[in-house]
Amino acid sequence: MATQDFRPEKKISIFYPPQRVLMGPGPSDTHSRILSAMARPTLGHLDPVFVDMMEELKSLMRYAFQTNNLLTFPVSGPGSVGMEMCFVNMIEPGDKVIVCRNGVFGGRMIENVERHGGVAVVVDDKWGEPVDPQKVEDTLKNNPDTKILAFVHAETSTGVQSDAKTLSDLAKRYNCLTIMDTVTSLGGTPIYIDGWGIDAVYSGSQKCLSCPPGLSPVSFSERVVNLVKNRKHKVQSWFMDINLLLGYWGSSRTYHHTAPTNSLVGLHEALLMLYEEGLEHSWARHQRNHKALKAGLQTMGIEYVVAEPYRLPQLNAVHIPVGVDDKEVRRRLLADFNLEIGAGLGDFAGKVWRFGLMGNSSRVENVIFCLNALETVLSNMGMKVERGAAEVAAYQTYAANTMTV
Amino acid sequence: MATQDFRPEKKISIFYPPQRVLMGPGPSDTHSRILSAMARPTLGHLDPVFVDMMEELKSLMRYAFQTNNLLTFPVSGPGSVGMEMCFVNMIEPGDKVIVCRNGVFGGRMIENVERHGGVAVVVDDKWGEPVDPQKVEDTLKNNPDTKILAFVHAETSTGVQSDAKTLSDLAKRYNCLTIMDTVTSLGGTPIYIDGWGIDAVYSGSQKCLSCPPGLSPVSFSERVVNLVKNRKHKVQSWFMDINLLLGYWGSSRTYHHTAPTNSLVGLHEALLMLYEEGLEHSWARHQRNHKALKAGLQTMGIEYVVAEPYRLPQLNAVHIPVGVDDKEVRRRLLADFNLEIGAGLGDFAGKVWRFGLMGNSSRVENVIFCLNALETVLSNMGMKVERGAAEVAAYQTYAANTMTV
Repeated sequence: MATQDFRPEKKISIFYPPQRVLMGPGPSDTHSRILSAMARPTLGHLDPVFVDMMEELKSLMRYAFQTNNLLTFPVSGPGSVGMEMCFVNMIEPGDKVIVCRNGVFGGRMIENVERHGGVAVVVDDKWGEPVDPQKVEDTLKNNPDTKILAFVHAETSTGVQSDAKTLSDLAKRYNCLTIMDTVTSLGGTPIYIDGWGIDAVYSGSQKCLSCPPGLSPVSFSERVVNLVKNRKHKVQSWFMDINLLLGYWGSSRTYHHTAPTNSLVGLHEALLMLYEEGLEHSWARHQRNHKALKAGLQTMGIEYVVAEPYRLPQLNAVHIPVGVDDKEVRRRLLADFNLEIGAGLGDFAGKVWRFGLMGNSSRVENVIFCLNALETVLSNMGMKVERGAAEVAAYQTYAANTMTV
Repeated sequence: MATQDFRPEKKISIFYPPQRVLMGPGPSDTHSRILSAMARPTLGHLDPVFVDMMEELKSLMRYAFQTNNLLTFPVSGPGSVGMEMCFVNMIEPGDKVIVCRNGVFGGRMIENVERHGGVAVVVDDKWGEPVDPQKVEDTLKNNPDTKILAFVHAETSTGVQSDAKTLSDLAKRYNCLTIMDTVTSLGGTPIYIDGWGIDAVYSGSQKCLSCPPGLSPVSFSERVVNLVKNRKHKVQSWFMDINLLLGYWGSSRTYHHTAPTNSLVGLHEALLMLYEEGLEHSWARHQRNHKALKAGLQTMGIEYVVAEPYRLPQLNAVHIPVGVDDKEVRRRLLADFNLEIGAGLGDFAGKVWRFGLMGNSSRVENVIFCLNALETVLSNMGMKVERGAAEVAAYQTYAANTMTV
């Protein structure tokens, strides 16, 4: 057979990406330390040197999650696989799961519950508002056979943070397990998995950890491990079955799949950087840069979607000013300034911008640059903007908020 | 709460891996071009520049698979996720699937069939032997309600290649769809997805493409796309549902998950390198280096597991010489020579070594180095080995087999 027939129609060359400033909902800018870590020579995934690195990775991850959970490891797939790993292992046919939905990712949780044979009871809150604990308690009361309470800690689609501790306390009072989405919060705002008593948690590599996307840190309590070991039905997925992964990430190192070696070395570097900085310092840095951006945006008359104290410092969702062409603004920011900001998702499409200040992207240089670029674009498009005022306000706020960790 | 409590017990430093020569069953040695490609700046996964790169990636992948299938893309997960994506989408409850098992990965296919609600009919062949088409035909005859025939093209656990065209022709004659595992074959031995009429195929990035592990190229025929669009039951997995992925990898670019941006740029580079070399040339190179290694190993009295013409050039499974301490040999090769070779898997544990000559690892330098290291270790461990003879035989064979593509 002739292989020529399947040649690409167009000439394809080496791909050199432009150097963007990533201030959308993720990925954030990967730090050069992490990029170079991933470019180190590939090791075999069962190499003893690599296995030692995996142990370090697990312990750095426990620090980031603030947990002693033995079963803490990075899933070899993006955050959506981490989410699915929680649901597919913990749900057996007919199990009732209360899902709190106040954005896109709560909706995805419902899909997961249903596809894995569970029954979803939905607690809806308005987009941009946190999960209402009172509604959750009422629903728990009305559904005493509930097995799991699932909620999103930091909703990437709206920039809102819910009160994880209160929700977890409620779940405990009604004898439920908890599944919590921390894709956007891990490393950016406080998370205390053991302190809050969360049973299953998943996150993503590409937000406040500033790795490239593709890995999902997860952690499971002993209660979940026992539950999964004693399931009546086999887990619906071979790849995601924790019973099999226990052997691979545990002490026996039984071959399961070939781990994404270079990406894991990148995650090791990212978590080491977070540890070197210290969690409290990283949280404070995210707050400080958020306050600076907020001061600047408000000077420009741009309003936040989320009310205090529920705003995520790492994901600033704002209303697009009236009369402004959403797509054209984002197109110009990208084309003229190499600056990526986030569009609105789902119900917020065309109405909201999302400014990410995550991980390595959470820097005052980015805040100032972004405000200046936005001023230029809006003013070129005919909006009345006082040039330079936002940057002054941002920098004054930044200077006034020295960190005291 | 105090974050100190969860600090790692041991001091953790930046991870600098040793520079190995990877001649196991994968990962193979990542080429420096691919390592540096992955270390380029991260782009947003919806950036128009990135989206163009995704299109190039799909067309390079079509060349590698020799197909015009529109639905050809890299799954954001390792080969096991690629496998599961085929089964979870194509099987509805009660569907009958004939699975050919002649090694570890056929066994994993059975797990997939059963977990996704199908009924597996197993055709067993001895480890190290190819799938027997006569047995498959008999089984098809006895099971006229079979929907899918699934088989492994290149069994990584045994080094055997089965006759994909004959199996695919049989499936067609009995009105079955086909699922084929090409994790180890893609890029190393001929694959003609359209020429053979295969319906669903998955592979891995870390074998003959020499990327780091973590991605799974897949391709689906129009028949599969129609099947999945017209399913009676929702696909059991949210992440793997092709109906949703069609939107993401198709023209609409609907947000599904955040693609592993940097890994995909690495895969783009790897596929571009394969295209630049040309498939026929890559296949011939794998053959040539295999013949050289074989000449050397046979000079040392080491025998192959698989009979001709079913040997995979990229995965040389050999019987461990009698009286030799398997683990100690592999330990010394790794510790003293930075050389990784593969252990036996499953039934072959302790009995077989697997020498990978995949992608960038398939080089005559590696053949000579490996033979020399093996001679040294075996001779130091008391086995009678004529020093230098294997290398001479290998190089003579290499020189005699100039490539005529």
